Amino acid sequence: MTWDILNVIGTIAFALSGVIVAMEEEYDLMGVYILGFVTAFGGGAIRNLLIGVPVSALWEQGDLFVIAFIAMTIAFILPKLWIHHWVKWGVLFDAIGLASFAIQGAIYAANIGHPVSAAIAAAALTGTGGGMIRDVLADRKPMFLRQEIYIAWAMLAGLIVGMGLVDSTPGYILLLILIVTLRMLSVSFHWRLPYRRIND
Amino acid sequence: MTWDILNVIGTIAFALSGVIVAMEEEYDLMGVYILGFVTAFGGGAIRNLLIGVPVSALWEQGDLFVIAFIAMTIAFILPKLWIHHWVKWGVLFDAIGLASFAIQGAIYAANIGHPVSAAIAAAALTGTGGGMIRDVLADRKPMFLRQEIYIAWAMLAGLIVGMGLVDSTPGYILLLILIVTLRMLSVSFHWRLPYRRIND
Amino acid sequence: MTWDILNVIGTIAFALSGVIVAMEEEYDLMGVYILGFVTAFGGGAIRNLLIGVPVSALWEQGDLFVIAFIAMTIAFILPKLWIHHWVKWGVLFDAIGLASFAIQGAIYAANIGHPVSAAIAAAALTGTGGGMIRDVLADRKPMFLRQEIYIAWAMLAGLIVGMGLVDSTPGYILLLILIVTLRMLSVSFHWRLPYRRIND
Repeated sequence: MTWDILNVIGTIAFALSGVIVAMEEEYDLMGVYILGFVTAFGGGAIRNLLIGVPVSALWEQGDLFVIAFIAMTIAFILPKLWIHHWVKWGVLFDAIGLASFAIQGAIYAANIGHPVSAAIAAAALTGTGGGMIRDVLADRKPMFLRQEIYIAWAMLAGLIVGMGLVDSTPGYILLLILIVTLRMLSVSFHWRLPYRRIND
Repeated sequence: MTWDILNVIGTIAFALSGVIVAMEEEYDLMGVYILGFVTAFGGGAIRNLLIGVPVSALWEQGDLFVIAFIAMTIAFILPKLWIHHWVKWGVLFDAIGLASFAIQGAIYAANIGHPVSAAIAAAALTGTGGGMIRDVLADRKPMFLRQEIYIAWAMLAGLIVGMGLVDSTPGYILLLILIVTLRMLSVSFHWRLPYRRIND
Repeated sequence: MTWDILNVIGTIAFALSGVIVAMEEEYDLMGVYILGFVTAFGGGAIRNLLIGVPVSALWEQGDLFVIAFIAMTIAFILPKLWIHHWVKWGVLFDAIGLASFAIQGAIYAANIGHPVSAAIAAAALTGTGGGMIRDVLADRKPMFLRQEIYIAWAMLAGLIVGMGLVDSTPGYILLLILIVTLRMLSVSFHWRLPYRRIND
């Protein structure tokens, strides 16, 4: 139950981030829906592809499709309702989406007996793959590659689940709170991984 | 038979649209072929992937490969033959490609028993997926996201086929004429779906 | 044995080319790893997808993952060790990667009984697919589309293997030397395929 709620929050958060990018690019209503859908569901599709689950399993998420559709429609009709709050709450929602999708992806990979490296990759892809497709379709540089620590937290979740350190619902909830907290701290304190210029 | 002819027209139209983009970007002969092939066959590949048909079914379309190859070779050697006509006739050919690919994609999805939502997605992907890959590879913003109504007509075809409202060859032909007409009207009268700026 | 060594050289060369692009874009450490991994392993993933091998076969390459990881870590920590040599030797390493990956991809496709066209496509995709994903993720125009003859040599390897003209280890080695030589000659003498401007 808790899980379903988190999944819904993550889906809505990711769908809305697609809606915002579509509006910034002045795409039409159809573009808004498409960018919202690929952001919310694209990560799971890439993950399924790479860990060997049929991508068509996507079509079994009918309820989430409907929820995302309603959220995007309201967001498009009444942008003033939420745009200002987004600046404030969007990062938190996105962090919840990142964490819940990453944990869910890692569980998926671990359940079908793949090694730890696949659990890490599945967590990273499920958590960030949708945003990656969104940015490629909008012809932007993928945000996840150069933000305050982002994909690394998804991979940490994958590592912990993949090594079997956590394997119960209460454990997953704690892990989710940990990942969300780490992500929010990264944003607040501008934590960045080391980087290097080529021309140093 | 009619169907095969439409499929050939659609394939050539899409291949030539890839050739034009490749020439605009000054890609070499190989780039011309590659961009033409991904535009003509990429939509079907993505659709197969997402509805669970092996992507490798692609390789059974040998005749269409040869036709596309010949069309692209002539187009590359003798651009003056067609470039000027393209401006005039290209939109119509592209509309035929969009409509025939969309209907074909929807029939595909419906035949393997997927729900209506999958038929709509299959129609949209088959009709516009090739152009999407073309634009991503050429580092452009996908045209289908912000043109006069485009992908929506493909989805309408998917909805009609997915709901079983049309399921015979004469019906498919009528649907094709309807979709091509709607698309041409959209271009002539600049029909656009509503869109919204983020800074309104 | 020779084969394994070539595969390792190709993997390292492609991983380092991803590292360089990531540094040029000022991505952080995680971006460096991600771009390196997709360049080294993305071509094989796309090839598997298009010729019908489960993409998840990717996860069986544990040793190559570790080698790529170590190479990228050293490259990131000590860029001065290699950046200057890269200009000189990078093209050769990349040519070895191109040739060994292309031949390997063609053998793959031929072994599962696909037609010659699939062997050519598999060679092209395995040899250049990783670089293509790298460039799309970094929001650049794919280099392979407009360089001195590049993908055409991979396709030549695919044609030769696909037609069964070469099917023994010594033969593959000779073919590899041929492809590497042709690629290096293309760079030295700026061989280009014909291209055409749209506004001629």
